[in-house]
Amino acid sequence: MPVSDKMKSYAEKSSWIRKMFEEGAKMKAEHGAENVFDFSLGNPDAPPPEEFNKVILEAVTDTSPGVHSYMPNGGYPWVREAIAARMSAEQQTDISHGDMLMTCGAAGGLNVVMKAILNPGDEVIVLAPYFVEYGFYIDNHGGVTRVVSTDNNFNLDFEAIDRAVCEKTKAIIINSPNNPSGQIYPEGDLDRLGQLLRDKSAAHNTTIFMIADEPYRKITFDNHAVPPVFKSYTDAIVVSSYSKDLSLPGERIGYLAVHPDIKDKQQLLDAMTLANRILGFVNAPALMQRVVAELQDATVDTSIYARRKELICNILRDAGFHFTEPKGAFYVFPETPIKDDVKFVALLQNERILAVPGSGFGAPGYMRIAFCVPDKVIENSAEGFKNAVKKATR
Amino acid sequence: MPVSDKMKSYAEKSSWIRKMFEEGAKMKAEHGAENVFDFSLGNPDAPPPEEFNKVILEAVTDTSPGVHSYMPNGGYPWVREAIAARMSAEQQTDISHGDMLMTCGAAGGLNVVMKAILNPGDEVIVLAPYFVEYGFYIDNHGGVTRVVSTDNNFNLDFEAIDRAVCEKTKAIIINSPNNPSGQIYPEGDLDRLGQLLRDKSAAHNTTIFMIADEPYRKITFDNHAVPPVFKSYTDAIVVSSYSKDLSLPGERIGYLAVHPDIKDKQQLLDAMTLANRILGFVNAPALMQRVVAELQDATVDTSIYARRKELICNILRDAGFHFTEPKGAFYVFPETPIKDDVKFVALLQNERILAVPGSGFGAPGYMRIAFCVPDKVIENSAEGFKNAVKKATR
Repeated sequence: MPVSDKMKSYAEKSSWIRKMFEEGAKMKAEHGAENVFDFSLGNPDAPPPEEFNKVILEAVTDTSPGVHSYMPNGGYPWVREAIAARMSAEQQTDISHGDMLMTCGAAGGLNVVMKAILNPGDEVIVLAPYFVEYGFYIDNHGGVTRVVSTDNNFNLDFEAIDRAVCEKTKAIIINSPNNPSGQIYPEGDLDRLGQLLRDKSAAHNTTIFMIADEPYRKITFDNHAVPPVFKSYTDAIVVSSYSKDLSLPGERIGYLAVHPDIKDKQQLLDAMTLANRILGFVNAPALMQRVVAELQDATVDTSIYARRKELICNILRDAGFHFTEPKGAFYVFPETPIKDDVKFVALLQNERILAVPGSGFGAPGYMRIAFCVPDKVIENSAEGFKNAVKKATR
Repeated sequence: MPVSDKMKSYAEKSSWIRKMFEEGAKMKAEHGAENVFDFSLGNPDAPPPEEFNKVILEAVTDTSPGVHSYMPNGGYPWVREAIAARMSAEQQTDISHGDMLMTCGAAGGLNVVMKAILNPGDEVIVLAPYFVEYGFYIDNHGGVTRVVSTDNNFNLDFEAIDRAVCEKTKAIIINSPNNPSGQIYPEGDLDRLGQLLRDKSAAHNTTIFMIADEPYRKITFDNHAVPPVFKSYTDAIVVSSYSKDLSLPGERIGYLAVHPDIKDKQQLLDAMTLANRILGFVNAPALMQRVVAELQDATVDTSIYARRKELICNILRDAGFHFTEPKGAFYVFPETPIKDDVKFVALLQNERILAVPGSGFGAPGYMRIAFCVPDKVIENSAEGFKNAVKKATR
């Protein structure tokens, strides 16, 4: 068998998602893309901010020797300095460039963290509903995913987390604003989580890392703010990217930062820098490092997503869906009107609406609607949602 | 222990290399960079070709929606089409865009291949002297590195390869033009290797892949050509990048292609596409994909490296070193005048010359000189090489 057993089974497991995408593509070919309401992809469609185009134009006219060469595996020190300065304000903690690494997106950063910290069999807690890729990132490096549900509003369920932590627990991944729920964890909850992890680390004589995956930090609605995790916990690592807030997901530019007082800091940073190298990332793309350094205060026009959030929430409400209104990111995660989310998503597909079943996020009975699509797509989907609910509940 | 045991031991093992770099940096600070002859890094210093600057300027002025968005994990189909066309000529084999993936450099591509094919304990043969990162790429995904020496001229040693292949052998990595030896394997040797792998695959009822890592393909000297591996073997995968031939190592843009008739092709391509996604690469950087598509006929001015090859070879010859003259890449791998290569490299360091001991490439008794440095650096190193030889052999 030329392909590894694990990858073969992964490919088979993920084939139903691919099937959905293929059917979506077929549908678009048949009915025209404008007549298919595709809410299945988290591909941000707000254009990069105007400053981005200026900065990148300047960057490529710089043809000094070495601008496209290798640099230290952790990234240009001055780029890290620029990000550390912004993060210091954001995290209300004094972060220096030495506490940071530039990475190939947040996905690259999370793999680097897992590679650096996991011994075989170590457990990492993820909170359902969760970004399905976390399971792969953990497994890639020999870890075991421990799924813990959140509460009815997708907030932290401390009793469930308490029960799940054991002597093998190496880390917990939190993602706030959350994909797929749109929830933002309040500061009090982060404090309480920090206390829980401190207690458990002490009880088991281990270090449990809090890994905050926060690429949606700047995309929030109705004046909701994302609290600084570094204020709540010291053994914390923030992983992020410019995929969403600058709309550059295809360019693979991200970063990670450790709390300046994290346990065994230098050893950890050395291990992550080595991981960045040997996993084949080597370094984050050079040109984009230089570009994002200049754009620390820039963000896509988030009012676009705020407007769409209102649009889709009104449509879902009118159609009778139950859901927690998203505070950030660009997803809403309603309950499906019937328990079988895969079946309901198929009913939506008959209405030319594409969504992802909650089962794909460890939360059956829900579905994810990604509203990073043109207003018209949202507006024109209203009838379809109503029809699907009618058919499901008659 | 916050860091994984394996990464901790890796960091310790690689610390002597870091120590060397640190001493080099100290030396440059003390004596001035122009008085330190740093041959330790394979960081290409020929500028990218003039066309590159034109093409990237055009590329960034295109602000159409989605130019920085996600695309299929394997890369833009039209970019792959452009590369497949050039490769079809190069490999004398009809390659289509569906046989290819865009990757984050060759390092990313090699990790993707290993992730896709290796079951735990599967063996991968590497040919010493070898690029030390191969060992990490294999281990990352549960494989075991089997080191096989080449012959006195760094050509394939078929008897040694024959002895090393067993039922666990999943692949052999070849790298021609070679880092660190500069050797290019002749077509007859590739044919013979192909026959050996076919025989062994049949005998063990396995599929043994030939993985050709060839980022130096376009950098050759004295009219030496790199033969097409796809002509010699069907279960072959070519991995490459634009790091050397366009001098863009910091931009992490590369690709891989499978032989159009490779065993279980679609399953393998699906697994590699999934690996590209879940290892966190997601896709090769979007902008650079669009740029390299336009530069299939462009190459850095290789006469720069050819001139330097002559310069360094003359100096080494004058100083009494024994070596095989490189046919490609930008390295020469002379024998050290004493068996202890680490000790000899320390003697060179006293002359402010930085080289890497052959031990770092699985070949003690040699050292690697990377001649991708300004002519002046090479010219001014002549006395130092002579002095070190004198001190070593007196």
